[in-house]
Amino acid sequence: MNAKNTSHTSGCACTACNSGSLGGRPIHERHMVSAAGATNRGVVYMAPGDVQVKPIAFPKLELDSTSSPVVTERQKRKCEHGAILKVVTTNICGSDQHMVRGRTSLPGGYMVLGHEITGEVIEVGKDVEFVQRGDVCSVPFNIACGRCPACKRGDTGVCLNVNPARAGAAYGYVDMGGWVGGQAEYVMVPYADFNLLKFPDRAQAMEKITDLTLLSDIFPTGFHGAVMAKVGPGSIVYVAGAGPVGLACAASCQLLGAACVIVGDAIPERLAQARSFGCETLDIRTDGTISDKIHAITGSPTVDAAVDCVGFEARGMGKAASGEVPAQVLNDIHLIAHDCTSDCI
Amino acid sequence: MNAKNTSHTSGCACTACNSGSLGGRPIHERHMVSAAGATNRGVVYMAPGDVQVKPIAFPKLELDSTSSPVVTERQKRKCEHGAILKVVTTNICGSDQHMVRGRTSLPGGYMVLGHEITGEVIEVGKDVEFVQRGDVCSVPFNIACGRCPACKRGDTGVCLNVNPARAGAAYGYVDMGGWVGGQAEYVMVPYADFNLLKFPDRAQAMEKITDLTLLSDIFPTGFHGAVMAKVGPGSIVYVAGAGPVGLACAASCQLLGAACVIVGDAIPERLAQARSFGCETLDIRTDGTISDKIHAITGSPTVDAAVDCVGFEARGMGKAASGEVPAQVLNDIHLIAHDCTSDCI
Amino acid sequence: MNAKNTSHTSGCACTACNSGSLGGRPIHERHMVSAAGATNRGVVYMAPGDVQVKPIAFPKLELDSTSSPVVTERQKRKCEHGAILKVVTTNICGSDQHMVRGRTSLPGGYMVLGHEITGEVIEVGKDVEFVQRGDVCSVPFNIACGRCPACKRGDTGVCLNVNPARAGAAYGYVDMGGWVGGQAEYVMVPYADFNLLKFPDRAQAMEKITDLTLLSDIFPTGFHGAVMAKVGPGSIVYVAGAGPVGLACAASCQLLGAACVIVGDAIPERLAQARSFGCETLDIRTDGTISDKIHAITGSPTVDAAVDCVGFEARGMGKAASGEVPAQVLNDIHLIAHDCTSDCI
Amino acid sequence: MNAKNTSHTSGCACTACNSGSLGGRPIHERHMVSAAGATNRGVVYMAPGDVQVKPIAFPKLELDSTSSPVVTERQKRKCEHGAILKVVTTNICGSDQHMVRGRTSLPGGYMVLGHEITGEVIEVGKDVEFVQRGDVCSVPFNIACGRCPACKRGDTGVCLNVNPARAGAAYGYVDMGGWVGGQAEYVMVPYADFNLLKFPDRAQAMEKITDLTLLSDIFPTGFHGAVMAKVGPGSIVYVAGAGPVGLACAASCQLLGAACVIVGDAIPERLAQARSFGCETLDIRTDGTISDKIHAITGSPTVDAAVDCVGFEARGMGKAASGEVPAQVLNDIHLIAHDCTSDCI
Repeated sequence: MNAKNTSHTSGCACTACNSGSLGGRPIHERHMVSAAGATNRGVVYMAPGDVQVKPIAFPKLELDSTSSPVVTERQKRKCEHGAILKVVTTNICGSDQHMVRGRTSLPGGYMVLGHEITGEVIEVGKDVEFVQRGDVCSVPFNIACGRCPACKRGDTGVCLNVNPARAGAAYGYVDMGGWVGGQAEYVMVPYADFNLLKFPDRAQAMEKITDLTLLSDIFPTGFHGAVMAKVGPGSIVYVAGAGPVGLACAASCQLLGAACVIVGDAIPERLAQARSFGCETLDIRTDGTISDKIHAITGSPTVDAAVDCVGFEARGMGKAASGEVPAQVLNDIHLIAHDCTSDCI
Repeated sequence: MNAKNTSHTSGCACTACNSGSLGGRPIHERHMVSAAGATNRGVVYMAPGDVQVKPIAFPKLELDSTSSPVVTERQKRKCEHGAILKVVTTNICGSDQHMVRGRTSLPGGYMVLGHEITGEVIEVGKDVEFVQRGDVCSVPFNIACGRCPACKRGDTGVCLNVNPARAGAAYGYVDMGGWVGGQAEYVMVPYADFNLLKFPDRAQAMEKITDLTLLSDIFPTGFHGAVMAKVGPGSIVYVAGAGPVGLACAASCQLLGAACVIVGDAIPERLAQARSFGCETLDIRTDGTISDKIHAITGSPTVDAAVDCVGFEARGMGKAASGEVPAQVLNDIHLIAHDCTSDCI
Repeated sequence: MNAKNTSHTSGCACTACNSGSLGGRPIHERHMVSAAGATNRGVVYMAPGDVQVKPIAFPKLELDSTSSPVVTERQKRKCEHGAILKVVTTNICGSDQHMVRGRTSLPGGYMVLGHEITGEVIEVGKDVEFVQRGDVCSVPFNIACGRCPACKRGDTGVCLNVNPARAGAAYGYVDMGGWVGGQAEYVMVPYADFNLLKFPDRAQAMEKITDLTLLSDIFPTGFHGAVMAKVGPGSIVYVAGAGPVGLACAASCQLLGAACVIVGDAIPERLAQARSFGCETLDIRTDGTISDKIHAITGSPTVDAAVDCVGFEARGMGKAASGEVPAQVLNDIHLIAHDCTSDCI
Repeated sequence: MNAKNTSHTSGCACTACNSGSLGGRPIHERHMVSAAGATNRGVVYMAPGDVQVKPIAFPKLELDSTSSPVVTERQKRKCEHGAILKVVTTNICGSDQHMVRGRTSLPGGYMVLGHEITGEVIEVGKDVEFVQRGDVCSVPFNIACGRCPACKRGDTGVCLNVNPARAGAAYGYVDMGGWVGGQAEYVMVPYADFNLLKFPDRAQAMEKITDLTLLSDIFPTGFHGAVMAKVGPGSIVYVAGAGPVGLACAASCQLLGAACVIVGDAIPERLAQARSFGCETLDIRTDGTISDKIHAITGSPTVDAAVDCVGFEARGMGKAASGEVPAQVLNDIHLIAHDCTSDCI
């Protein structure tokens, strides 16, 4: 990286040309307009508790994160295998909240958030064969090349080719390869043939687009937990947590054929939501052990499978539900499930 | 086996004492009454196309098939690990029809048919620990010891300890170990702790007993086909055949989460039955290829999975549906399913 | 449990008849001689750091742990499905050391240790069909009935029928069902047909008996770790720890076809042992990261699979190797293995 | 396809411009020299029993099989994702022999044979990122895009994007997509990042290049059979057939940890080859059943696993070994293996 390199022009955003700053110029102070005059806006992390919709650069079929303040996510590469999408829908992930709540040393102004993307293809690179302009697609949150040994064995979450620092990459997340996030109007998706999941019928897709939006991250996270816990036809399952992942997991258990899905949480509205699609529920704030509460529903203190959809911010049982007890869910699950358990988070 | 052996008394049924016959005495000419005076009746194979309900011996906790005309199924053993069941329900299997239609050299009068048994335990042997008098149970059609290497790895269909001639045994089937069939009032089930599947709630079970009757053979046969074909959430499946196995398979596909189950047959009433629980159907008697017929339903000529629930008595397509074309289903399936197929029969 | 019950005779060992003590009489103060005059001796836990070879009762085909000071392991049951073995060889397990080092509240005098048993059958119960007097057998450390849903699906470590307190049982271990341990002259093994693994050729077995002794616990523990880590033909594997489990794991990796097995430890003699059968080794006491040390051997800083055979008593790297760093191995493994790791302990 | 299309110049090889012939011009009568003056030669199928080394066109980064006499293999596409290889080694496959022996209606002069290719990359397309000039690589016989649902789940043999007629494609094989074979000096490999398996060390690879040549087809065919038959540590395996696939399978069984590999064949030299690397052997020409012959080796008439490496040209046992008995191997395997069998061919 050399400031005298001819590719570094006046106003260059890169770190070398902006030696006084941590990285290059903040993302919203760079060139914003594409050759064709197109503009873009995105959700930019500014400070703990502060995100703002800002003008950002229109995506190109290349990645240049060399001006990132995070040294390990700096890379520059052509992406003729990529596609540019007009974002149709996107979610806020629980993981985004880690950053927004300040669990990062990233300075503000350098990160466009968002890795739960559903969009319409508006441009494809020369290497793209099977995706076309106009396709409405879901974008898996993890970026994968489809060509390395990890991708070949299906472990796309630890792709070896998309992050210079380690295996695995994602959009809009600190130290995950520097790929620009998709809480934006437009976003670039690399390896489009491999990564994009095209909805076969556009009109049908648009009709259910808020449901389909769940496919990029949150639904498969819950589904994965259910599969790991070996849920199948006839299973009686306990799902700890009725947040978005827990509810996605509970619905997944039903798709997998579970006979009875019991969801536990401390928030009545969440439990009502679980009941609305046929789950049994238990309130962890009430007195009694997890075994007792399950016994009251099924007549047995144990279940065939259990899934942790809470994570380390778990709360205690009964009166302890007002405070954090990080190991509560894991200990509960060991009590009630003989050998089939899983952890979504 | 020696006629002078003191255990051979006057009227002994065994082969050695009845040298003029193929085997020992026909089953309905033996001692019929238990020590306690109990009697029994069963469906006895008499000749091709001729089965009759006859008095038969009340079961003991032992197996003595030494008087069978089939040399390879002769064995004698204690069964204190067994239980005696009063039969509640039982089915006629397609396999029974092979014998009844004369595809066996077995002489009449020696075989009580029936391997699809649901019953109530009325007596248990000394070695039985976990099954009790009064339990209502499903009896898997294949007999297994639960103690050999095959059983330990889950391959109970090829148990090494229950058939002197080869791996695997069944009730009421020629050359499968000589175990007495269950189309009877009472039947003995060996290795009761391992073989019997107790319904946890007796009243609930009796209410649905005709459904539960399917669990001993026919339903798991269809389910197995669906699992072998890798049917799962979202699958589009073709099930060839809407007989009992085909319908069980179609219902299994739904339990496994299939998005669309298409059932093909030549009999309108069967297809109507498939439609009654949400399947799509195709009539193999009409003109057109299997691919065309599937395309007309789903918009694609291929499916994610296909299951053969017909077997070697398959009929042709269109006009050829009036005659047998043994390889029709297998060839159909190769055309429409890329790599996930299965064969139930 | 009633002291007036006629089965409680003078000198009864049970808790009820010995109300002054925690449990019943210490194990070495009870009736020692069988009906046939046979005697027995076993390794009895007396106090932290103190085990002693003591006379103990000759085994019967029943379990009576009602006099145990540990309430949750008290049970009484007939074991006609069991066999009595003359112990040929046995090991001390790392788990035994937990108790011996005082990590238990068990009072001394009540526990015969030992769950790694190889022996010769000298007596079988009436329900045993496939094991005979004279058979030389390996005894899996975990006790299983072979008849419950957990056993049927192969999860014999969480058998539902052998421990009144929870799923799973073992010989000679506190709160694991009260089964008498096998660091003794004679021991009873329940469900002998299911649990015993007979060596097919007695002479051949006796010739290699010290190797075969590893089959009851330590070798399968290492093998299980290798399988969980998905070791297969061509794998490059890191095995953390060269104690008995680590060496068993390393040998298992070779049996599974690994191309290169790297073993790490802090004790030179253990590393020499690993090298003696073809492993590469690394010394965690020397400077450098785990990645560097692996790179020096294979030319790459990562491996295909890694197995933790150390557990929570892990030591640090380099200078930190003299102290405990409980998470050291798990963190090491996350650095060097992309997605295939396992934990033996 | 229109002869007036401007891309059809004088001397065009395509079918439309050569209406008198079955397809376009024979492959060795077309333009042979690349823009850079490079020439190429390949093994061309001329007639049953007649193959010849002929000048053929130097490969380009595109596929044009529109002049093939086989309508279903005609396609035209750019392959900037491909690479051109100088062939280092190649094998003749048993499948090639089907064609050479006349089991095809293909007219002579249109097919360059060869799908077992090992070569050095001399040119890559613009879309290739991870393969470089100079890389020595193995080329899997089946062509796959790495981007379709079949490839994503690992079923590269039924890739949906490489053959216009059906799922799956291969080099140099009739009706498999029209890809030019590799029994040639130079060959083009599409989707090079996905298909090519680079040997990490060039010098090491060249030293063992005749062994590595087996990796493109024949060795994985044998290995696949062993895996399908569930061969693992300790297995006793019967491999039917000691041709190249059988020997590859036998070696694979050893890599997978088999304790004893028994190979059967009728040709003494093949059996000697099997013995040379530690297999047991049996000669199918001698009297006796397969069970007897296995019993003579292991003391048991059954094996843990068996693999058919013969196929439908199987010979009988004993005196029948001089004639074809197509079902012989499958019937043998049913006799000797309880439930784990496989079919390589």
